[in-house]
Amino acid sequence: MFDTRILLIIALILLTTKAFSIAMKKIHMPQVIGALIAGVLLGPAVFKLVEPNDTIGVIAEFGVIFLLFAAGLETDFRQLKGMLKPSLLISVLGVVVALGGGFGLALLFSKTLGLSVFQSFYIGVVIASMSTSITVEALSEMGKLKTKTGTALLGASVFDDILVIMVLAVTMGIGSNGFSLVTLGIIIVKIIVFFAFATGAGFLVNKLFNWAYARMGEKRRFTVFAIAYCFLMAYLAELFGLADITGAYIAGVAFCSTRCVEFLESKTHWLSYMLFTPVFLANIGIHTSFSGMTSSLILFTLLLVLVAILSKLMGCGLGAKFSKFTNRESLQVGAGMVARGEVSIIVASKGIALGYLGSIMYPSIIVVVLVTVLIAPLMLKAAYPKEPIQPVSGQ
Amino acid sequence: MFDTRILLIIALILLTTKAFSIAMKKIHMPQVIGALIAGVLLGPAVFKLVEPNDTIGVIAEFGVIFLLFAAGLETDFRQLKGMLKPSLLISVLGVVVALGGGFGLALLFSKTLGLSVFQSFYIGVVIASMSTSITVEALSEMGKLKTKTGTALLGASVFDDILVIMVLAVTMGIGSNGFSLVTLGIIIVKIIVFFAFATGAGFLVNKLFNWAYARMGEKRRFTVFAIAYCFLMAYLAELFGLADITGAYIAGVAFCSTRCVEFLESKTHWLSYMLFTPVFLANIGIHTSFSGMTSSLILFTLLLVLVAILSKLMGCGLGAKFSKFTNRESLQVGAGMVARGEVSIIVASKGIALGYLGSIMYPSIIVVVLVTVLIAPLMLKAAYPKEPIQPVSGQ
Repeated sequence: MFDTRILLIIALILLTTKAFSIAMKKIHMPQVIGALIAGVLLGPAVFKLVEPNDTIGVIAEFGVIFLLFAAGLETDFRQLKGMLKPSLLISVLGVVVALGGGFGLALLFSKTLGLSVFQSFYIGVVIASMSTSITVEALSEMGKLKTKTGTALLGASVFDDILVIMVLAVTMGIGSNGFSLVTLGIIIVKIIVFFAFATGAGFLVNKLFNWAYARMGEKRRFTVFAIAYCFLMAYLAELFGLADITGAYIAGVAFCSTRCVEFLESKTHWLSYMLFTPVFLANIGIHTSFSGMTSSLILFTLLLVLVAILSKLMGCGLGAKFSKFTNRESLQVGAGMVARGEVSIIVASKGIALGYLGSIMYPSIIVVVLVTVLIAPLMLKAAYPKEPIQPVSGQ
Repeated sequence: MFDTRILLIIALILLTTKAFSIAMKKIHMPQVIGALIAGVLLGPAVFKLVEPNDTIGVIAEFGVIFLLFAAGLETDFRQLKGMLKPSLLISVLGVVVALGGGFGLALLFSKTLGLSVFQSFYIGVVIASMSTSITVEALSEMGKLKTKTGTALLGASVFDDILVIMVLAVTMGIGSNGFSLVTLGIIIVKIIVFFAFATGAGFLVNKLFNWAYARMGEKRRFTVFAIAYCFLMAYLAELFGLADITGAYIAGVAFCSTRCVEFLESKTHWLSYMLFTPVFLANIGIHTSFSGMTSSLILFTLLLVLVAILSKLMGCGLGAKFSKFTNRESLQVGAGMVARGEVSIIVASKGIALGYLGSIMYPSIIVVVLVTVLIAPLMLKAAYPKEPIQPVSGQ
């Protein structure tokens, strides 16, 4: 039977997440934080209006799938042009150092927090990603988006998504099969087979959509078939033991160079915006618990923030330095990769859903996202030389 | 735990419903029929790929809610201008005669088909509505939309939605409380209280949105708040013992005269189109069973089709005649109200979900929709006088 209480819950989620997002925007904070706070307030941690709930869980899962599909759609390989090597180096070093840093820190706390080696590793994966949107906003505000640093950062962000998706695929494989050289081998073979298949299928779908577009123009039905493809690849990824969001991302990439990609982007954006993303973000808040907030967890969280900041600053900065950027430029690149965002939250929620992470970790991850998002623009500003104030002509 | 099979099921539903809709369109049949057929093929009746499933049920329910919300948004009171009385009379007589006819026929078959009095009544409710879109398409194809008949038909379609929503509200009340004069009184009081509340709230929301629109222009967030309001009213309607779709429709009406209604319409349209409506329609097919198809049910279905056609033709025709339309015009009006569509399907699925109707009734309802949709345009054409073929200038 259909439980009508779900209607009230969704109404509450939409109202509060939007209200808090708007409030955050007013004080120049990321809106995603507002939606998370709304979830925490609604959930068992504060007002106990909404309990964790299977139906909300399914809608939230669709929400992540649509978010990763959108990320795939937005992939712009042209951003790599001329900056392929520096972008790759910056991205790889950033991911490796951040993953290693998070893993190492979690290992140090594994006894106190009761984390297994795999759980410690997963914390590394959570903080391995970066958020492009914050950096892009800060750079374009400063008018520095089209500089050498800006181009390298945009290119690195393309690789970053792909890398995290790959790392997540391997991690999921280890999570469900255990770690040994043999299982690792099997996982890697599975991943290669899946990516080969996905590339082939993506190539066909890309040609098909371009052919259909040339023949009949922009048709509403494209969106339905694209979403069907997204769900199909998400399902297949799970069949291969990878994450559904890996499949969704790959499905998005298949369309990223079609001529109807902007159309698909704008329509699926609305699907996410109006229902699925708010429910996904609120659901994280609803699952957040502060009851296990011990002093060692607080200490761990503070150190995790520090590791998250320093690892990207150093890892990505080093990548830039190796690519013959000047010291100042390397600092700018490092600062531009510090912010964490949706991807960290998505990876964390995935881990919690699968039991790779206790939901007790949510507050820590949210704090990492919050602090890095707030500090990254300030660091970026500091990394650029102060320019003499231009005399304004006229007024 | 999230069952990943749901991803495959949704992918299958989206692919097949869209493919069959396109096929139907090619042979000039309504696309909704294609989606229903796709569901029947996927479901236990034929290929047994998809079993009835709770998650799909929830998405389908959201689908109906969005469809009724959209119907509310599209309400255009200006269509009643100058045709208020004829429209009302045509609509009321059509609904009453069709409801009575369906009820009567079902009562005749109640022994053979094992229908209670209430279940028989519900069959009447299912065939009480009409479908505007088919008529509008046929009329505009003939260039007769802006005639006296066309205006009366458009006006009647506005009242028709409202009437069916009202009848459904009363019926749901009886369904959950049983029928007696006292409960009927209580139900009517509840309905009046709910509609009074909904009108007040709708008035406020309408003002609020117009004020916000004047202040900040078209904002994305309007859509989120509108959907939250839709879910809230759907929930409240259920609290009052009415149907959630009644609340959703009323919520839509609240926005139908705001200055951002077209914006809301287009965005919620995409939400329905890309995911929820296909799942809703396929879900009906999935629940369709032919195993109880006895010869008496087939006979009943054929007679129900006949009653569905004649009741609107006579009821609405009489309404037009009473409004001083000529005989021919009255025939045109009657023919224009014959087609059944989404609303009949929605009411039927609501009834089946609540146990007011056996799922054995789905094929009958689908046949009614199919036949009336096919026959209505032909009847309309026949009801208009043959015009002498215009000599075409040039080629």
